[in-house]
Amino acid sequence: MDSSLLIPAVAGILAMGVVGYLVNDVLKKPRGNALMIEISDAVQEGARAFLRREYFYIAIFVAVLFVVISATPFVATGEAIAESLGWQTGLSFIIGAVASSLAGFIGMNIATRANSRTTEAARKGVEDDKNPEAGLKNALSVAISGGAVMGMSVVGIGLLGLVLVIVMVDVLSGDKGWGQHPGWINGYAMGASLVALFARSGGGIFTKGADMGADLVGKVEAGIPEDDPRNAATIADNVGDNVGDVAGLGADLMESYIESMIAAMALAVGLNVIVAPALDGARDVVSSMQILPLMLAAVGIVASIVGVATVKFMPGKKVQNSLMNGTYVSAVLAVVASFAVTKIVLPDGFSIGSLADGIEKYTWFGVAASSAVGIVAGALVGFFSEYYTSTKFSPVKRMANNCQMGPAITVTDGLAVGMKSCLWPTICLAIAMLGAYELANFYGIALAALGMLVTTGMIVAVDSYGPIADNAGGCAEMAHLDKGVREITDNLDAVGNTTAAIGKGFAIGSAAFAALALLVAYMASAGISTADLKSPQVMFGLLLGGMMPFFFSALLFDAVSNAAFKMIDEVRRQLREIPGIMEGTAKPDYARCVGISTDGAIKGMLFPGGLAIVAPGIVGFVCGAEALAGFLIGALVTGVMLGLMCANSGGAMDNAKKYIEEGKVTDKDGKVQGKGSEAHKAAVIGDTVGDPLKDTVGPSINILIKLMAVISLVLAPLLAG
Amino acid sequence: MDSSLLIPAVAGILAMGVVGYLVNDVLKKPRGNALMIEISDAVQEGARAFLRREYFYIAIFVAVLFVVISATPFVATGEAIAESLGWQTGLSFIIGAVASSLAGFIGMNIATRANSRTTEAARKGVEDDKNPEAGLKNALSVAISGGAVMGMSVVGIGLLGLVLVIVMVDVLSGDKGWGQHPGWINGYAMGASLVALFARSGGGIFTKGADMGADLVGKVEAGIPEDDPRNAATIADNVGDNVGDVAGLGADLMESYIESMIAAMALAVGLNVIVAPALDGARDVVSSMQILPLMLAAVGIVASIVGVATVKFMPGKKVQNSLMNGTYVSAVLAVVASFAVTKIVLPDGFSIGSLADGIEKYTWFGVAASSAVGIVAGALVGFFSEYYTSTKFSPVKRMANNCQMGPAITVTDGLAVGMKSCLWPTICLAIAMLGAYELANFYGIALAALGMLVTTGMIVAVDSYGPIADNAGGCAEMAHLDKGVREITDNLDAVGNTTAAIGKGFAIGSAAFAALALLVAYMASAGISTADLKSPQVMFGLLLGGMMPFFFSALLFDAVSNAAFKMIDEVRRQLREIPGIMEGTAKPDYARCVGISTDGAIKGMLFPGGLAIVAPGIVGFVCGAEALAGFLIGALVTGVMLGLMCANSGGAMDNAKKYIEEGKVTDKDGKVQGKGSEAHKAAVIGDTVGDPLKDTVGPSINILIKLMAVISLVLAPLLAG
Repeated sequence: MDSSLLIPAVAGILAMGVVGYLVNDVLKKPRGNALMIEISDAVQEGARAFLRREYFYIAIFVAVLFVVISATPFVATGEAIAESLGWQTGLSFIIGAVASSLAGFIGMNIATRANSRTTEAARKGVEDDKNPEAGLKNALSVAISGGAVMGMSVVGIGLLGLVLVIVMVDVLSGDKGWGQHPGWINGYAMGASLVALFARSGGGIFTKGADMGADLVGKVEAGIPEDDPRNAATIADNVGDNVGDVAGLGADLMESYIESMIAAMALAVGLNVIVAPALDGARDVVSSMQILPLMLAAVGIVASIVGVATVKFMPGKKVQNSLMNGTYVSAVLAVVASFAVTKIVLPDGFSIGSLADGIEKYTWFGVAASSAVGIVAGALVGFFSEYYTSTKFSPVKRMANNCQMGPAITVTDGLAVGMKSCLWPTICLAIAMLGAYELANFYGIALAALGMLVTTGMIVAVDSYGPIADNAGGCAEMAHLDKGVREITDNLDAVGNTTAAIGKGFAIGSAAFAALALLVAYMASAGISTADLKSPQVMFGLLLGGMMPFFFSALLFDAVSNAAFKMIDEVRRQLREIPGIMEGTAKPDYARCVGISTDGAIKGMLFPGGLAIVAPGIVGFVCGAEALAGFLIGALVTGVMLGLMCANSGGAMDNAKKYIEEGKVTDKDGKVQGKGSEAHKAAVIGDTVGDPLKDTVGPSINILIKLMAVISLVLAPLLAG
Repeated sequence: MDSSLLIPAVAGILAMGVVGYLVNDVLKKPRGNALMIEISDAVQEGARAFLRREYFYIAIFVAVLFVVISATPFVATGEAIAESLGWQTGLSFIIGAVASSLAGFIGMNIATRANSRTTEAARKGVEDDKNPEAGLKNALSVAISGGAVMGMSVVGIGLLGLVLVIVMVDVLSGDKGWGQHPGWINGYAMGASLVALFARSGGGIFTKGADMGADLVGKVEAGIPEDDPRNAATIADNVGDNVGDVAGLGADLMESYIESMIAAMALAVGLNVIVAPALDGARDVVSSMQILPLMLAAVGIVASIVGVATVKFMPGKKVQNSLMNGTYVSAVLAVVASFAVTKIVLPDGFSIGSLADGIEKYTWFGVAASSAVGIVAGALVGFFSEYYTSTKFSPVKRMANNCQMGPAITVTDGLAVGMKSCLWPTICLAIAMLGAYELANFYGIALAALGMLVTTGMIVAVDSYGPIADNAGGCAEMAHLDKGVREITDNLDAVGNTTAAIGKGFAIGSAAFAALALLVAYMASAGISTADLKSPQVMFGLLLGGMMPFFFSALLFDAVSNAAFKMIDEVRRQLREIPGIMEGTAKPDYARCVGISTDGAIKGMLFPGGLAIVAPGIVGFVCGAEALAGFLIGALVTGVMLGLMCANSGGAMDNAKKYIEEGKVTDKDGKVQGKGSEAHKAAVIGDTVGDPLKDTVGPSINILIKLMAVISLVLAPLLAG
């Protein structure tokens, strides 16, 4: 076994130790009064029921794909196939799927337990201690601890699983070492990717189907506020926040995290590293390049732990500042440590290329810098996402004002903002890609992806904090607590949109880079020396690939609508058939609504998910390896644009509504157009259109392009023959 | 001079003869009563005023670009540059711009004169002769004659202009012949493309700004029906139909028509045709391949004339049948004649390729078949567009039913239908592209584009017929004519959506193919042997190019919204400040509204148009010729998808509204949810969102991708150095 694996292993164990500590910390907090416990239990039960069914279907897909992968060497022959496919890859695949599922399970279990505990901390401060600031401080602490469980589980389990796979490959290879069977490791990324696809799309359908259903009947028809206990869909809505934004996002970033490492490792082998004249020297460089991503991930874990520990309530400052503080600390630490680690792991210089195509020299510094380029690009994409979606800047302000022109203009504006928001992020990503390539060839692009994700522990912690705070607010509302409690939870929740925008920036940017790196690794592995744009096969692939994100999105849209319809019918039925709901004397049947969302999500995710899995195979086997390369990049290009557009359209429409609710929009006579105004009604419609865009379709596209790329990488040896 | 040019010249003159005949035929028809004449005059005057200002700005762009193109050989050197750029290309460019402008001018002048004459024909039948069927018959005849003027002008002027350019190049080249300076001819396509860009985007902003403004104040706020004379924006709305759907569409298809010929001619030279052992034989084949597109266009003109003549009222049958009859007749004639012409013009067999890359043999039959493949693919894309947008099929029916769930679901559904509609058209186009390539290499792809467009005369005639019928209805409404008159015009107008869907299918399909062929011609001309997907420059270009259609669309969206806002303010102001408008005792100031739309369209079109013009140059000169190849194909891929999505989303939302208005939607208790119901209100909002998608953004994207490709082709010699 490679002894250098000890360091990532220790870092992974450290992350899991932190998880244990935080779980203990959260669970020992008081759960609140009986009503709050009941609400929290209902959310927990709903989330668990969904996960159970989701994992059941995922298990079927995993089993089928394991058989397919394992059986391949028996039906196809060739040295490359035996080296890269077979039961060993299948085993890695299963480990990847289990790792992602496990992280989702742990993270969501704690997130759904942290919600009422956050509310209780706020309640105690307001009601018992008459000290709202202490309430805010303690509530923040519970919420961020709950979020950090998801964050640390993602990186801890993700890295430990990868080490396990490498050790397994090492053992299975006998004395040849894991570097000899790089293909076997790819299955791990594919497993994580498969779970991410279903977690994101299923979770996204669940959360937005429930949310739209709840809003359309509750706010629009019955005229009751959000999170009102009289709305039967309320619990389902809260469950949705967890399954979509905690489990879904965690699986998404875990996938990118693993794939950027796998892509870097695959490229280390595929890129033809040369150290003339001694071939052994080249071998050493390749090994170093393979181990480097794991080392970077290890220091990233430490940086994330420090970052999470830094998040503390700062009297007189906004909650936002506390969260941003932690994010900055972890990012700066990670960058500094990355340079140190790269200097230690890599030789001073090395070369990549061939006599035919030319040889380029690279340095350890270039490699480290390419990972820093990724961090900068990710932050810039996040900044532009914030610019286009935050109430602080002109796009949302103008949109909110235009809401006075009615819903059609609101939606049109929202779509336009989303489309416009593609400009600068794309330019940033394109330039960063060129820069990372110049610094360290395609290996640099993979490291740029990893750079964006090295503090995944921190990013996911902050992102998962959002739904916990949101749920805590729902719990306060449903348990009829003091208004001051809701104020604290609103305060906690308010930062969610900005941090979510930044998180999405990293998610989209890293997905693009990871997919690019996987694409190059695929081409190297499939033995494609050039995929000429002018080749009709490549063009064919480009067109079909470009279509995929659109068609896939349409299927998800339909699934959300269908789930929402069923929800609307059910809530209406309950209002009609259960007397006393509106008066508050009878309780709606929450569980039935959760069941409807679960059904809708499961049914809705199977076809688009299956399509994403089989499409690369069909294109590759029917139209050839070059068509598949075109297909992947076509999907990447439209996917990145559609992903940016969906995320930012939805974010802008959401915040335009909030801006109006804050009473900041006035008509020509200076009259405030706040809640209940025509402008607000238009904004609510806009928000409802934007919700599935930003929380279902947009994030799922990220996974689509990554999953198709990683499947192609696994299939590559078959296509090379 | 090449004597074979006589045939296309005669065909072009024949088309212009038909134009003369039809103009005379339309103008001698009675214009109706004083009020109708007043309305028609207002629309004419508005349309002319817009064209004047639009052409003024286009003239500035043309002048600047002429100087740039002409000055190039003085600042850059190289044989290829002198051969391909310079004042000769500049002159072709001007001729192209003038040709397109002239066709638009003639077509729109007659279309705006045919409107009240159509109404009068219908009125005479209903009121004077008490014979509505005769009214319908005569009204159809006037409307189709008016539309055919645009159709025949497009093909007649388009082909004559090209012949003129070739003759000019011939003369300027001395005894070397036009085939020696293929680059000079490319300017012609660029000129037509430039005018098309502004005509489509400016016209699209005008029409939808006016339409949205008119609807939002009229239908939604003031509660007055469409085309009501009390709405100040009504005339602007009618003008918009002409500048957007007549002049814009005509310029769009004229561009594709010219570009598919130019691309085929450029590829004939660029593709390395060989006839071993005699080089002279190859020269003959190249000449034949250059002349063939002109010959096909010539027979297409004859087929279109026959098609137009076939459109006659058939007692007891729908108007739709008459129009489709004409379309089928011209298509079948064109296919049959294409095979005959190709057999005569081309030798039996020829070869393309090189010793290094391999040599492929092709036949005249393959070439003819590739053009037939284009026709079939265009028809299929049109069919799928109809499937997703017609009230006859389930997508729109389901959408219309879902409108009962409110505006948010309506819009979401509409976007989903649009996204879903990308699937089959893309598959058709991709397979057709592979097929055409197999049949006749890239020359086959250019001919497939031309195949789709060979009956452009007929397609544009039918498409321009739509706005004339629409305007005739407006005229009937505003002149308070008998209800029976409006019924006739509604009957004429009803077919518009289906034929428009088919027309859009051809427009998108031909744009994709023409752009692909231009891209290959660009690469051949820029001396790019391969543009490898794996090259970071190509990836860089792909990302930026993929972003362009999104950003460009956002700018157009904004322009439409801004124009609509100003219109809304103005209509509100008039309702407030001019007493008696609502009572019908005072007349609104229509001209002012036309002026607002004109301003909005001109202002809104300049930046996106300028961006489209300079972007290929910036990418090419800063990032290199390969990056530009990536850029073009990136824009092509996202452009085709976004174009399909926008066109079909908008069409579906429009028709869902119509389906509800027809009273075909019922709630769960079987009660009809027609005009005025909540479902209808939601559908109106959906339609308002969809309008700029289908009539501004979607069609403009087609032109964006073609224009950038043709500019790249013109710039290619500079980038090769």
